[in-house]
Amino acid sequence: MSASRQAAASARSWTRRRAAKRERLEAVEPFASGRVLDAGRILDALQALLRPGDRVALEGDNQKQADFLAEALAGCDPKVVHDLHLLISSISLPEHLDVFERGVARRLDFAYAGPQSVRMAQLLADGKVEVGAIHTYVELYARMFVDLAPDVVLLCAEQADRDGNLYTGPGTEDTPTIAEAAAFRDGVVLVQVNELVDKVRRVDIPGDWVDLVVASPRPYALEPLFTRDPRQIGQVDILMAMLALRGVYERHGVTALNHGIGYDTAAIELILPTYGEELGLRGKICKHWTLNPHPTLIPAIESGWVESVHCFGGEPGTERYVAARPDVFFTGRDGSLRSNRVLCQLAGQYAVDMFIGSSLQIDASANSSTVTEGRLTGFGGAPNMGHDPHGRRHSSPAWLSLPAGEPPALRGRKLVVQITQTFRAGGTPAFVESLDAIQVGADTGMPIPPVMIYGADVSHVVTEEGVAYLYKASSLAERREALAAIAGATPVGRNLNERRVEALRRDGLVALPEDLRVDVRKAKRSLLAARSIEDLVTWSGGLYDPPAQFRTW
Amino acid sequence: MSASRQAAASARSWTRRRAAKRERLEAVEPFASGRVLDAGRILDALQALLRPGDRVALEGDNQKQADFLAEALAGCDPKVVHDLHLLISSISLPEHLDVFERGVARRLDFAYAGPQSVRMAQLLADGKVEVGAIHTYVELYARMFVDLAPDVVLLCAEQADRDGNLYTGPGTEDTPTIAEAAAFRDGVVLVQVNELVDKVRRVDIPGDWVDLVVASPRPYALEPLFTRDPRQIGQVDILMAMLALRGVYERHGVTALNHGIGYDTAAIELILPTYGEELGLRGKICKHWTLNPHPTLIPAIESGWVESVHCFGGEPGTERYVAARPDVFFTGRDGSLRSNRVLCQLAGQYAVDMFIGSSLQIDASANSSTVTEGRLTGFGGAPNMGHDPHGRRHSSPAWLSLPAGEPPALRGRKLVVQITQTFRAGGTPAFVESLDAIQVGADTGMPIPPVMIYGADVSHVVTEEGVAYLYKASSLAERREALAAIAGATPVGRNLNERRVEALRRDGLVALPEDLRVDVRKAKRSLLAARSIEDLVTWSGGLYDPPAQFRTW
Repeated sequence: MSASRQAAASARSWTRRRAAKRERLEAVEPFASGRVLDAGRILDALQALLRPGDRVALEGDNQKQADFLAEALAGCDPKVVHDLHLLISSISLPEHLDVFERGVARRLDFAYAGPQSVRMAQLLADGKVEVGAIHTYVELYARMFVDLAPDVVLLCAEQADRDGNLYTGPGTEDTPTIAEAAAFRDGVVLVQVNELVDKVRRVDIPGDWVDLVVASPRPYALEPLFTRDPRQIGQVDILMAMLALRGVYERHGVTALNHGIGYDTAAIELILPTYGEELGLRGKICKHWTLNPHPTLIPAIESGWVESVHCFGGEPGTERYVAARPDVFFTGRDGSLRSNRVLCQLAGQYAVDMFIGSSLQIDASANSSTVTEGRLTGFGGAPNMGHDPHGRRHSSPAWLSLPAGEPPALRGRKLVVQITQTFRAGGTPAFVESLDAIQVGADTGMPIPPVMIYGADVSHVVTEEGVAYLYKASSLAERREALAAIAGATPVGRNLNERRVEALRRDGLVALPEDLRVDVRKAKRSLLAARSIEDLVTWSGGLYDPPAQFRTW
Repeated sequence: MSASRQAAASARSWTRRRAAKRERLEAVEPFASGRVLDAGRILDALQALLRPGDRVALEGDNQKQADFLAEALAGCDPKVVHDLHLLISSISLPEHLDVFERGVARRLDFAYAGPQSVRMAQLLADGKVEVGAIHTYVELYARMFVDLAPDVVLLCAEQADRDGNLYTGPGTEDTPTIAEAAAFRDGVVLVQVNELVDKVRRVDIPGDWVDLVVASPRPYALEPLFTRDPRQIGQVDILMAMLALRGVYERHGVTALNHGIGYDTAAIELILPTYGEELGLRGKICKHWTLNPHPTLIPAIESGWVESVHCFGGEPGTERYVAARPDVFFTGRDGSLRSNRVLCQLAGQYAVDMFIGSSLQIDASANSSTVTEGRLTGFGGAPNMGHDPHGRRHSSPAWLSLPAGEPPALRGRKLVVQITQTFRAGGTPAFVESLDAIQVGADTGMPIPPVMIYGADVSHVVTEEGVAYLYKASSLAERREALAAIAGATPVGRNLNERRVEALRRDGLVALPEDLRVDVRKAKRSLLAARSIEDLVTWSGGLYDPPAQFRTW
């Protein structure tokens, strides 16, 4: 090498991030005692800590929110703190967008914007926010270790001690991953906690990774997103659940799986102890789960169906129940749940054989999306669960039952199941010629259409009409026909002729209730092991504590 | 629900795992002081801790080995400890198989068996070991959270304190993930450490997750698997590196990437500061990396090419260098590297645009494998890096430059690049009609052939003949032709006629050196920024300390 080049290299500083971190921490010293920030000075502290243009990760998970820090960030003076680049996995709070409206932040990379999706689309149209990209949750975290290293991360946890050791509580979710991305790249880790204690219940994140903690005046916001009231489950959901159980779970022998959060999958959970028991399936299917502690899974757990549940996050109200069932759930030495989104995603992609979830819209080729007109919702975690990971190399009977690949590289395939009624409430068809998402993508200038799950990745679709075995289709045309056969009177379904349906049934691409020996008359609410939240509480032996909004008694 | 069913449920114990763990820990108390086991009584301790039929995860990573515990396990009396089910990601030590030969263990789930692959195949043929499945690394960890929960895990770390807090050192690799799988499902976590200290350098794993530690009489075994001596890099490697740089990196604008460990990819790393500089590519490509600290990356780092490197594991000899370059590498407060295989895998799948690696064999359809006759090597991590993850939803220019998907669900695609000379040492063709792996799979009764990377997932193949752009092929036949065009005089390449090659060049499916404006005469060792290990030490400013086997001076 040339001497001059070597001289240039040695003259370069290799510790800029470290020096910048030191400066930031010195700047907040007036507002802190050791690692503990004064909650009353949080605005001053943030303004001292942040630099214009900083990349800031704000937690922002699926369920829990660092809301005290979000509020403080939104309150910063845009003359002092501006042009931030925010990384937020789930945009759930008004403050997440106030930050942009006020000019504190300018650029945004995110994964999901459910509750704020309409305002999000508006801000984008108004040029108030520049979107880098819309990710899935794990993609956004992945980029924090590559090209989106955060300068500062604003997190939340239940407890901290004065050394910064954190107890995240049952809803661990993404906190360890975001903390790791910052702590080991000289980013600043600031955590709002519900309480400061002398000794945390258990250490979920070592104090070595944490720079600053602040006791929030109120516990962080947490939504019970995975609670489905059995009262809302209708006969059509129950029929679909029966079809899924016989036509998918039993047929493929699915032992390890992931469920979405719709009423239709809740119905499946609730008929395991009744219909599933009748079919003699206990111990044969549904033994290992990757999902949050769904209250509607309690009857199946109590009836001995479930060997293990690993969770992405927690669910408010299930704390005591989970703590009392450590043979099933992952719990710490202190007894409470340990969740972890990244590891549960890993399990969902590489260790389970099936994902089943509902969709708002499915097009004629089986592409599906939850994006509808005027909303910019993003993706969450469904695309990661809802695809066939080609990096898998071990096999299982369920996986092998879907032959895939080209000779000689034959392999199995993950079951990716979409379940939906042909028409939604209000008579809106679930099956449409073109997804609203395609138009939303075009209108907002997205580089690719925001499709949630690709039709080519979907192996089965279940409706009240029957089951379409799309993985058996040998062409796109055949896939579309099989889908049309169970799409009822929707624009996608109404033009398929009866003789073609018969042929598809004969070839095994479609199964109607009678083909699966499902007695439609049995699809009654009496088949649900629990018909109300109260029933779930009873099943739990009084260990489940439903959140207030689910208590009707 | 029926009263009787509820009574049965409440009679069931839900804390069996917890009770079993308590019993085990009580049984080892005679051999421990607090959490610290007496190294001299390790055999007694293991025999007290383990129960016949236990599922035991033994670390067994890609690089580091809990060798003291492996040796003790192999020494157990098979009358006391037998029929274990072992989970080992990398079978590297003779003791890993002695355990089976002696009857201590019977069942095995693993990911890679490089150094022990011949003996492994023999033991399998002799019926001494029952293989559950061969996984990739992350699949095996994923299953620890689903259907392969370990009862006991045997790990290694550099330091522990008496509370069980661990410092894993730069080679963090898989230790936190395996520890989490056990610690939160009432498994026992036992860790051999190089030293017991009053205070660990930094806490990588909290003591709350660790039950027992033992000071090993010698440091754990650690292999420098990622060190490639530039002396071994020949002119053909350099030519391929030039072709890759122009035909793939430059053409697609690849900024975030992962490299395998071959001499061919090492050559690419070493011509960035020379050929890459000449092409004006610094700052335009190769900015963000996910890979271990390859010594051959040092000149590119020193020349200002590299903005970040996140690592699966460490690499012996790079400790001081990495610690002095915290702007580039992920390091802890103590200054040393933090690696993490699961997070780096996540980054490799969802945040980088390209994987490039070499293969031992590639068939005519571009399926590739490192399995050759008589060896049962397994997969390691290549299949996870070497596929297009359909769960990705954000885009980048490189990813978008490979159009994929069916309308309207159009998307981009990951670059999965295979690089190899047409003939290996000894004149063995790299391109063959049928992979040895197919025969090995059939002979050993594997449910699917052990293909490393599927042909349909490969986007580019680079040889000394040129670059095949397989992602542009519209049929399997066209993919095979494009591959044949660069497969030289191998059985795969020799029958393609010249006119067909011309047509493929015109259509952009194949590029020869002249198409890429690569001057073949420049492919000389003088183009390497470092031509020896000594040169790498010089580039590092004396910070790189090569392991003894790489020191020739």
